[in-house]
Amino acid sequence: MSTPFKSTRRVEFCETDAAGLVHFSAFFQYMEQAEHALFRQCGLSVVLDDCAGRLISWPRVNAACDFEGAVKFEDVLDINVTISRLGDRSITFAFTFRLGSKPIAKGTITTVCCHIEHDKAPQSIEIPDWIRERLQPLVA
Amino acid sequence: MSTPFKSTRRVEFCETDAAGLVHFSAFFQYMEQAEHALFRQCGLSVVLDDCAGRLISWPRVNAACDFEGAVKFEDVLDINVTISRLGDRSITFAFTFRLGSKPIAKGTITTVCCHIEHDKAPQSIEIPDWIRERLQPLVA
Amino acid sequence: MSTPFKSTRRVEFCETDAAGLVHFSAFFQYMEQAEHALFRQCGLSVVLDDCAGRLISWPRVNAACDFEGAVKFEDVLDINVTISRLGDRSITFAFTFRLGSKPIAKGTITTVCCHIEHDKAPQSIEIPDWIRERLQPLVA
Amino acid sequence: MSTPFKSTRRVEFCETDAAGLVHFSAFFQYMEQAEHALFRQCGLSVVLDDCAGRLISWPRVNAACDFEGAVKFEDVLDINVTISRLGDRSITFAFTFRLGSKPIAKGTITTVCCHIEHDKAPQSIEIPDWIRERLQPLVA
Repeated sequence: MSTPFKSTRRVEFCETDAAGLVHFSAFFQYMEQAEHALFRQCGLSVVLDDCAGRLISWPRVNAACDFEGAVKFEDVLDINVTISRLGDRSITFAFTFRLGSKPIAKGTITTVCCHIEHDKAPQSIEIPDWIRERLQPLVA
Repeated sequence: MSTPFKSTRRVEFCETDAAGLVHFSAFFQYMEQAEHALFRQCGLSVVLDDCAGRLISWPRVNAACDFEGAVKFEDVLDINVTISRLGDRSITFAFTFRLGSKPIAKGTITTVCCHIEHDKAPQSIEIPDWIRERLQPLVA
Repeated sequence: MSTPFKSTRRVEFCETDAAGLVHFSAFFQYMEQAEHALFRQCGLSVVLDDCAGRLISWPRVNAACDFEGAVKFEDVLDINVTISRLGDRSITFAFTFRLGSKPIAKGTITTVCCHIEHDKAPQSIEIPDWIRERLQPLVA
Repeated sequence: MSTPFKSTRRVEFCETDAAGLVHFSAFFQYMEQAEHALFRQCGLSVVLDDCAGRLISWPRVNAACDFEGAVKFEDVLDINVTISRLGDRSITFAFTFRLGSKPIAKGTITTVCCHIEHDKAPQSIEIPDWIRERLQPLVA
């Protein structure tokens, strides 16, 4: 059984809107920031050298979020992240947001492992074993 | 058969990221901006008085996007919007993004018609007939 | 002699732009976030009840920043905040940003203490003594 | 006598905050977007090839704004841009924002003409004559 990666995020004023609540688009930035913190905890970065002069990075192919409750300025969200699918070339991260015991949102981001070269389109590759091993404990 | 609402959006520099492309979270803002332009074209606003001292607005319950192609600073996106479901209390908008003939992204936003009162939680209501009539031509 | 309020801020990916660096507008959000953290450390919030049914808040009248060095994704900035002027009705906060020993930016934000009532224009007031006392140690 | 460059900008919902008004940091994005529109009208872009395999771009060294009035969702701002100083290596743009006849904000951005090479620090250069000629009519 996996242990989710846990992080927290305080709602900043510039992320609220005139309805007095966090703007829905901010949740996609919160998801990405939690994903990047997860990479750092695993000793990885979302932008990595492949030791052969090219960069490895992770363009998104899908992002989705269900909104279940509202949050306001200075609320501190608890965010849990697991990997719901670790494919050959792609990863789906699953996120749950809570405010205390209150469910706030649930989302997913699917990313594809790619070689990135300057001024070229990203090219998908198989996820290298040394990366896969570090992410394996988070697979739900 | 419906006619989609059409708009365009130029990519601004602050919407790009260090990968040289538009950040994926910007597409959720583009969808909302196209939805709001659609409301304006129908003679509506996303924040309306219900003529009884309360506001009508549209909190989101779901947003999702598939990313199919990359766009850069100063690219001008063509955005088509239809209503894929006009329910009793909710609307699902469907968006397609193209750069010339190249498909870029497809997304949806589902919103719920609500009474909004200051310092209270939004309360869902049936979509008033006068609003429903103006949106009907966009139902796909 | 005052002791500056110190905070740190990691650069998030969505704050970078296609030049590969943090977008200059992000520094104004970083300044505001440090200011709000300073208020929290002083036992205050930027949105406070005045104990008479009105809110006290702090609209900005000026913001400015000099940019001296570049920062990238995942850099962690050191931010120092002092109060360069504590007026009768306004405060000027002064911010310095460093990356290790390297100077990155220097900025100021001037805010005015106001009563905020729903659907009315903000009305400037004298800064209440109980707020002034808590901010006094940060005056440079 | 110069003629200012004129543009308009509708306030989007995601640019408002919980005070019900446009967040002050949005004005810095509005200034940049007007500056980029000015470049396009002059047949330029803020990212240009120098015809010798290098890019010319314009990092900011200062940005400042005075806030004089509040604006809300769906307000349409009138923006005037002039060049208050066209130096050997730098440009200062001056912006005024109005809502109808009501003054809203005044700001400046100072940028430096630089050669940009991948993975190197920007290097300041003299503004090429062919760029200077196109910007000259906007000098106030």
